[in-house]
Amino acid sequence: MEFPSKLIEEAVEQFSQFPGIGKKTALRLVLYLLKQEKDQTTRFTEALDNLRKNIRYCVECHNISDTEVCSICTSHRRERSLICVVEDIHDVLAIENTSQYNGLYHVLGGIISPMNGVGPDELNIQSLVDRIAGKGGEVQEIILALSATMEGDTTSFYITRKVSDKGVKVSTIARGIPFGGELEYTDEITLGRSILTRVNYDLPAS
Amino acid sequence: MEFPSKLIEEAVEQFSQFPGIGKKTALRLVLYLLKQEKDQTTRFTEALDNLRKNIRYCVECHNISDTEVCSICTSHRRERSLICVVEDIHDVLAIENTSQYNGLYHVLGGIISPMNGVGPDELNIQSLVDRIAGKGGEVQEIILALSATMEGDTTSFYITRKVSDKGVKVSTIARGIPFGGELEYTDEITLGRSILTRVNYDLPAS
Repeated sequence: MEFPSKLIEEAVEQFSQFPGIGKKTALRLVLYLLKQEKDQTTRFTEALDNLRKNIRYCVECHNISDTEVCSICTSHRRERSLICVVEDIHDVLAIENTSQYNGLYHVLGGIISPMNGVGPDELNIQSLVDRIAGKGGEVQEIILALSATMEGDTTSFYITRKVSDKGVKVSTIARGIPFGGELEYTDEITLGRSILTRVNYDLPAS
Repeated sequence: MEFPSKLIEEAVEQFSQFPGIGKKTALRLVLYLLKQEKDQTTRFTEALDNLRKNIRYCVECHNISDTEVCSICTSHRRERSLICVVEDIHDVLAIENTSQYNGLYHVLGGIISPMNGVGPDELNIQSLVDRIAGKGGEVQEIILALSATMEGDTTSFYITRKVSDKGVKVSTIARGIPFGGELEYTDEITLGRSILTRVNYDLPAS
């Protein structure tokens, strides 16, 4: 696509670096910005610059935070004996949205992936081990809430070995067919594993 | 969605003002930005700030331009007797991409739409009339390339009346079933009109 202006070209170029945004969408977004008041662009770029400059990570759990220790880690309402280990901040938000979990988190900041050159030392794994040790028995269980992929399994395995002498229970989120899922459309591995890992059927309390 | 940080919340808020970007996509984009180098955010916001501050519009055709008169208006290779009237800069790029047009443009900057409070005075219509008059007969034809909607038709009608005493030919882009379109799936209005406005079938030169 040929642009009538270098300024437009540069802005489109920058927008299209985002995942899922191609040249056409980028142009649409840029032209949208041009149609709005100048202030709106300023507010937009200031918000991003502010974010990038002032963003901090909780020293306890590595979640994004405006303060040194995040609001989840300082909350008195949360179960302090439980730590849910997740890959990313995305996952914290997703789990918080379920309203089913009331413990703390530990954000690894990624997942062990030799293909992408990410080893255990690039992740917040040692700090998890130190955190468990430093709390002197307060942490009783860690829940590994990682993706059900090769990388996720490798990471779970590595962490489990690392904390094996710390006297904490290690659990992982349940795998099986999703709620609302139809057997017919479930892949073989999930279906096969969900038969092997079947659980007792409890009648709902009436 | 509850965010662990005001900075994130503000950035997501700003991103989700763009058309087609919801809260979830906005969060994905913001987290992507956080994973990249700081420089990338700076380059991105600088490109947008630059664009918004320094953008200029061609004084002749109102297309986006880095110079006072745009490269199309100054080009000696373009047919100067033809002006294609379009709604937006989008349309200029779309028509340029076809490589089928070699005349000049006139960007209205919108379309007459009483519903959205856009009247003829908000658009670059008077400047089109002045431009035709000022060229002393150089402009021989204007092509109305506006959307085939009620607003587009209203705008075409208004412009045609405005230039009726200027001695220019007024044409409009062809309407009918699109190339590759199947009759079965063409809507009734398009099909009906394309029968009424049928054209002579010329055998291709062999």
